[in-house]
Amino acid sequence: MSKDKQKKKIYKPKPISGFPEWLPEYRAIEQQWLDKIRVVFESYGYCSIETPSVEELDVIAAKGEDVDKEIYVLERLQADSTDKKNARLALHFDQTVPFARYVGQHFNELTFPFKRYQMQRVWRGERPQVGRMREFYQCDIDVINVDHLPISFDSEVASICYEALEALDIGRVQLRISNRKILMGLLTHLDIEDIVGVTRIIDKIEKIGAEEIFKILKKDLNISSDKIQEILTLVQNKEVSTIKALNDEMKEGLEELSFVLDNLSHLPDHAVVADLSIVRGLDYYTGTVYETRLLDVMEFTGSVCSGGRYDDLASNYINKKLPGVGISIGFTRLFDVLKNYNHIKAGKKSPADILMVLPSEEKRAFASDTARTLRNRGFKVEMYHAAQKIGKQFSYAEKKNIQYVWIPPFEDGKAHEVKNLDAKTQMEADPNDWTIS
Amino acid sequence: MSKDKQKKKIYKPKPISGFPEWLPEYRAIEQQWLDKIRVVFESYGYCSIETPSVEELDVIAAKGEDVDKEIYVLERLQADSTDKKNARLALHFDQTVPFARYVGQHFNELTFPFKRYQMQRVWRGERPQVGRMREFYQCDIDVINVDHLPISFDSEVASICYEALEALDIGRVQLRISNRKILMGLLTHLDIEDIVGVTRIIDKIEKIGAEEIFKILKKDLNISSDKIQEILTLVQNKEVSTIKALNDEMKEGLEELSFVLDNLSHLPDHAVVADLSIVRGLDYYTGTVYETRLLDVMEFTGSVCSGGRYDDLASNYINKKLPGVGISIGFTRLFDVLKNYNHIKAGKKSPADILMVLPSEEKRAFASDTARTLRNRGFKVEMYHAAQKIGKQFSYAEKKNIQYVWIPPFEDGKAHEVKNLDAKTQMEADPNDWTIS
Repeated sequence: MSKDKQKKKIYKPKPISGFPEWLPEYRAIEQQWLDKIRVVFESYGYCSIETPSVEELDVIAAKGEDVDKEIYVLERLQADSTDKKNARLALHFDQTVPFARYVGQHFNELTFPFKRYQMQRVWRGERPQVGRMREFYQCDIDVINVDHLPISFDSEVASICYEALEALDIGRVQLRISNRKILMGLLTHLDIEDIVGVTRIIDKIEKIGAEEIFKILKKDLNISSDKIQEILTLVQNKEVSTIKALNDEMKEGLEELSFVLDNLSHLPDHAVVADLSIVRGLDYYTGTVYETRLLDVMEFTGSVCSGGRYDDLASNYINKKLPGVGISIGFTRLFDVLKNYNHIKAGKKSPADILMVLPSEEKRAFASDTARTLRNRGFKVEMYHAAQKIGKQFSYAEKKNIQYVWIPPFEDGKAHEVKNLDAKTQMEADPNDWTIS
Repeated sequence: MSKDKQKKKIYKPKPISGFPEWLPEYRAIEQQWLDKIRVVFESYGYCSIETPSVEELDVIAAKGEDVDKEIYVLERLQADSTDKKNARLALHFDQTVPFARYVGQHFNELTFPFKRYQMQRVWRGERPQVGRMREFYQCDIDVINVDHLPISFDSEVASICYEALEALDIGRVQLRISNRKILMGLLTHLDIEDIVGVTRIIDKIEKIGAEEIFKILKKDLNISSDKIQEILTLVQNKEVSTIKALNDEMKEGLEELSFVLDNLSHLPDHAVVADLSIVRGLDYYTGTVYETRLLDVMEFTGSVCSGGRYDDLASNYINKKLPGVGISIGFTRLFDVLKNYNHIKAGKKSPADILMVLPSEEKRAFASDTARTLRNRGFKVEMYHAAQKIGKQFSYAEKKNIQYVWIPPFEDGKAHEVKNLDAKTQMEADPNDWTIS
């Protein structure tokens, strides 16, 4: 077995572009964040689901035209002729398609309105490129119902996401909310046919500015200056109450938007604004749409968390009308940016509350028993691994950010002692009733 | 947008062989199990890490010869000529290779002994086959150190896994422990050259029986009957204290095994047995090896959780001696088998403690406020979505396994009431001080 070890070639590992990984002290924070988000999602009664990492390629492709290029398909390294007969599998690029497929597949076993959250990795098969993630967590929350879904859910999911982001302690969070029916109504009123084309361009307004949008709408879509002006006036109007409905669709959109805003009035002043320039590029949104900004983190441009209402997301998979509304937190991108700009303080390298000193090999069983007693009382206790000098054991605790060092008696009849490395205090302690003070 | 909807083709979704997914009531239990395992892992001070789902194919392939056929490689659906220049990426098929690569890559930033747990999905690129999983969770715990790793960790990781499995309430768990040096020592003593070949065959003893092993060793490896008899006598000997060391290697193995067993003496009688037939097929184990059986679940044959000690797992990635010891729980397979044989009771369809009744549209804000008050006090509260008949709201709570239904006053000045659907009691309650009794 060991004979050919001398020849062993070393593959020096390096990071893979777009596939982030963290050191333990940052993974600890990532995990805390995921836990906090989950607690908020569950506090509203949303249940967890997970779907496989893959879907059949036909299921994914059922969604739209221009997503193909971001898909990773799987190939068995040792593929053979039987592989061709089976459906091709692709890693999911979001959690919306898998959710829609899940609802279609398990329709008869679910209780509606079906409220679920999903916190999994998704993959984008992009070319390696700086800053572009190819694997990342998303935290999604959606509710879906049969035939009709009350508008109150449009404010509920917004409220949940606001609360989830607030829990992360990343400064002020601002929801920007619109309703696509308002712009759609205006476009219909103006007899504009290429509605998808216009919304896709309007979606870029924050990035490229109104002037540029004007030029593109004029040049690419050949829309008259008057009409473009009306469109730009609408999407730049921050006072929703001043907008006049020009047809039923606009009226409905304005009413829905008011309802949603009213139902978010318990949030702080900075937390919610109406912003009619938010249209979201994705074709399937039909009403409320959301984006979310961090007001105190200048380095994070773009939306932390986005979503909206859709009329029939699962209609590719089941012959039912299933309207829904949902929001997705782009978790890993948020974490990565905040970490890179030093907005995240490293966590502890060890989850342990206490390091148990090993006084001597003879005292190992005794130290283990003491550790067990403390664990049974709910403490996290790491055992030091060797009967080395106590100074070395203390410096290990410091390196691993373990706050308390427990020193079992080196001689029989003496008392246990605990040192608090932060407070630099040391005192006698009984493993059966010591508590963190 | 809606013009071409009539033509919409429906892809009726079906499960993908080997990629399990659960309904919410089982996902709730899966999540509880994962949480419980994590709590035990952390209670010993092991930190969490996660690695990307992929590794470079060269990194994965560095491990051994016969794993290739189980690997999934990724292809961009719209691959072009630039793809060929980049390293091929493959989904990891275990967490050991990624862990070794992680340690090699981040060596200078880690504190040793490095104790980590990892609970992620892994993939096996197998042909679709009944009962064969192609995506599943593993829960791994390993400790790795520079140059020397104390033998006490061999008992610590065993103890941790025992405790983690016990926490799942799946009946009695039994660790079966051996030390490969004992058999290796005997094989050296017997002048047998193909040690890897013999251990791979011995590994099957429980499945095919001693008689069959005898035949195979004789026929395939051409070992004399006397020697085979000595080997079989050793691996079937359950009384380790009666075994005589024939050389230093055997002696070391026997001493290590005794140490490990001694250090597990705090566990119940059924929990630990020595079993020298356990050799584990994998070539990299060099000392202690473990398997784990469920004594009360006859349907789960095979090992729930296995592992062992290795001398230099990361030597493919770094020019250091890094001995380690670790165990892996085959989580999803365990969950799947126990679920299929009805050993797992379905959980709740909603995580909510309380369903908040919506008395009327006018009372929506009031009901929302009440829900918020209760959430702030730590309860999980689902809002009912429409002001429907109260009977309908109650039956929704029943369907979703929500135990408490909160009824805000339908008229001003009246009191809130709460109904406990399990106990079938209903009483007045104040959202500011109600508790689950």
